[in-house]
Amino acid sequence: MAMLSPSRRLRRTPFSQGVEAQGVKGYTIYNHMLLPTVFESVEADYRHLKDHVQVWDVSCERQVELRGPDAMRLMQTLTPRDLRGMLPGQCLYVPIVDETGGMLNDPVAVKISDERFWISIADSDLLLWVKGIANAYRFEVIVDEPDISPLAIQGPKSDELAARVFGEDIRTLRFFRYGYFHFEGHDVLIARSGFSKQGGFEIYVEGTDLGMPIWDALFEAGKDLNVRAGCPNGIERVEGGLLSYGNDMNRDNTPHECGLGRFCNTQTAMGCVGRDALLRVAKDGPIRQIRPIAIKDRIAPCDRAWSIMDRDRKIGQITSAAWSPDFDCTVAIGMVRMTHWDPGTELRIETQEGPVTGIVQEQFWI
Amino acid sequence: MAMLSPSRRLRRTPFSQGVEAQGVKGYTIYNHMLLPTVFESVEADYRHLKDHVQVWDVSCERQVELRGPDAMRLMQTLTPRDLRGMLPGQCLYVPIVDETGGMLNDPVAVKISDERFWISIADSDLLLWVKGIANAYRFEVIVDEPDISPLAIQGPKSDELAARVFGEDIRTLRFFRYGYFHFEGHDVLIARSGFSKQGGFEIYVEGTDLGMPIWDALFEAGKDLNVRAGCPNGIERVEGGLLSYGNDMNRDNTPHECGLGRFCNTQTAMGCVGRDALLRVAKDGPIRQIRPIAIKDRIAPCDRAWSIMDRDRKIGQITSAAWSPDFDCTVAIGMVRMTHWDPGTELRIETQEGPVTGIVQEQFWI
Repeated sequence: MAMLSPSRRLRRTPFSQGVEAQGVKGYTIYNHMLLPTVFESVEADYRHLKDHVQVWDVSCERQVELRGPDAMRLMQTLTPRDLRGMLPGQCLYVPIVDETGGMLNDPVAVKISDERFWISIADSDLLLWVKGIANAYRFEVIVDEPDISPLAIQGPKSDELAARVFGEDIRTLRFFRYGYFHFEGHDVLIARSGFSKQGGFEIYVEGTDLGMPIWDALFEAGKDLNVRAGCPNGIERVEGGLLSYGNDMNRDNTPHECGLGRFCNTQTAMGCVGRDALLRVAKDGPIRQIRPIAIKDRIAPCDRAWSIMDRDRKIGQITSAAWSPDFDCTVAIGMVRMTHWDPGTELRIETQEGPVTGIVQEQFWI
Repeated sequence: MAMLSPSRRLRRTPFSQGVEAQGVKGYTIYNHMLLPTVFESVEADYRHLKDHVQVWDVSCERQVELRGPDAMRLMQTLTPRDLRGMLPGQCLYVPIVDETGGMLNDPVAVKISDERFWISIADSDLLLWVKGIANAYRFEVIVDEPDISPLAIQGPKSDELAARVFGEDIRTLRFFRYGYFHFEGHDVLIARSGFSKQGGFEIYVEGTDLGMPIWDALFEAGKDLNVRAGCPNGIERVEGGLLSYGNDMNRDNTPHECGLGRFCNTQTAMGCVGRDALLRVAKDGPIRQIRPIAIKDRIAPCDRAWSIMDRDRKIGQITSAAWSPDFDCTVAIGMVRMTHWDPGTELRIETQEGPVTGIVQEQFWI
C-alpha cells in the first residue's frame, strides 16, 4: 500500500479535523473526496462496528439536487424504478441507467417535496449526466451539488446514541424514512439508513458550521457506549451483500445482472432513458449475475478484478473480497455466468497471488 | 499523509507493474484510477525531470470517444472553441463548459477523422455529460470510454529516447500534432504533448498487451540517458502555469476566469451549450482570474483552498502551491479578484499553518 498525496482536488470534509484527531490510518477517494477506510485495523473496526456504535464521515456521499417544476419528471427519466408512489419523507434506492441499461450509479433518492429531490450518490459524477439530460430535454429544473455532507451513526447502539443527541423521537423513525430533528436550534434532516447491516442513521449536515459541533456532541454523548470513529467496513459490507459501485458493478452491467431487478419497474417507469434496453433484459433475464462466493483461503486485498475460469474460458470475476473473522473464510462478491451460478458450484479464481477455489453461496452472510 | 487503501474501484493500469517495480512512493486518484505522484522525492523527481527524461504512467487521462456522423457536431456542442479548422492529426486544448459557462473539464481533443474524436480528459466523469448531451439531442454518434492508456515521455532528452524506440521521424513531429509510429509490428498513435513544460510525447496505448513491452523498451533504450519513472510534478507544473482541473478550477469557474479566454471563440462556436452564458462573460470580462503568486515562506502542502483576505473580506484563494528549488520561493496558483490582481500586489494568505504573504507575479516561472 502506498501513500496518498494530498491536494485540494481530493476534497477534505467538514469532519476531516475530527477524523484526523481520531487517528485515521487509511483513505480511499470517493467522488473526489476523502473517505476514511481504517482507524484501528479493518478487523478491529469490524468487531467494534458489530458490537458498539460508530460515527462515520461519509461526506463523499455527495448530493445531486433537483429543484423546480420538472424535478419529478427528471427523476423518473433517470431510473427504471417507478416513483409515482414516492412520498416526501421517503428514501428510495434507485438504480440509474444509461440508454443501454448500463448502471451509471446506484444512489438513494430522498424526496423533499414534489419539486425537490436529493440524490445521495455513489462514486461517479452523476451530476454531469443529470445536468446533461436536464439541459438537453429543456426540463424546468435546477440541478446542482449543494453543500451537504452526510454523517452516519452505525452499529447496534445507534438508536441509543442518536436519541441522546437528537431526542427520543428518533427511535420511532422507520427504515429509509427521514425526519427533521433539533440540534442547537437547527432542524437537521436525519434518515434511518447507512452503508452497513448493523442499523443506524445518516445525518444530512448542511454547510460546514454544524459539522464539528454535531461530531463532538456524538462523541461526548457516547462515551459510555464506547463510540468510535469508523467508516464503511470492507468485511462487514461484503458479508451483508452491500454492492459498491465501481467495485462490483459499472456501466458494463445492467441492474438485473447486479441482482437489482426488484428495483426496476420497467413496464411502468415511463420516460426512463434506459427503458427500451431494460425491457429486453427483463424479458430474457440476465446471463450473468452477482453472487456471494466463499473462499477458504486468506488472500491479498482484491485490488483488481479476479478472473473466474472454466479451463481457458473466463466465466466471471470477483470484484470484492475480505477475510471474515465471524465466518472463518474470505467472503467475496462476484459476477458469474448462468452456467456456473448455482449455489454449491466450485469456481477456480485467479488472484494476483495465484489460483484459489471458491464456492457459490445460497445467500450473503446475513 | 495517510495510506491509500487498494480496491478495484481505484483502477490499476497496464503499467502498474512497471510503476511498482520502479518503487512508486505515493499516488493520487484521477478519473477513478491510480496516478503516481512521487518516486524518489517530489524535489528529486523535479530535478531529474528538468535534466533528463522520464516515463509517466498517465493512463488516468482516460479517453471519451465520439464515433459517428454527428461526432463533429457533438464536439462543437461541448466547447466554445471554434473547431471548424481542426484537421485530422491535430490535438486541441478545449475547455468544456455547461449551460452556465462553468468548466466541466479541460481536456485535449484529438481528431482522428471527421467522424471520430478522442477527448483526453482531466479529472471528472466527462463521459456522463457527453453521453447525456448526445442522447438527449439524439445525435447520431456513439460515445464510449475506449481501452486506451496514455504513456508520456517527458524531459529534455525525450526526442532522443523516443527516436531510439519509435524511429527518427518522431523528431519532426510538431507540438500538439500526432502521427502513427511503429512498435513491434503495430502502428501506435503518438502526440507531441504532455503535462510538463520540459517537452515530450504522449503514446496512446490501446489495450493492455502492448503496455509493458513499450514500458520495458523505453527503459532498455534509455539506460545511458538516465531514464526514470516519473509523474506529473507538483513543483514543475505550478512553475509552468499548467492548471489542474479540480485543484485550480471547477464548475464554479468560467474559462475566462481561468485565463483560457484565448481558447474561446464564443462568437463563432455555434451550438456550444454554454454559448449564451459565455457571450455575456466575454463582453464584461471576468472579475476574478488565475494569477501566479510567489510566497517567500516554505509551507505545508496545499491540501485545501487557502483564502486570500483583505482585512475581513475574502478576495481570492490559492489552490496549488509548492516549494521551488530553482526559484527559491513557494510558487502558487490562485484566483484573485480584479481589485488585487495587478502584478506586485501584496496578498495576505490564510494557510492551515497560519497567515503568509504572497506577491502577484507578472507571469508564471517559465
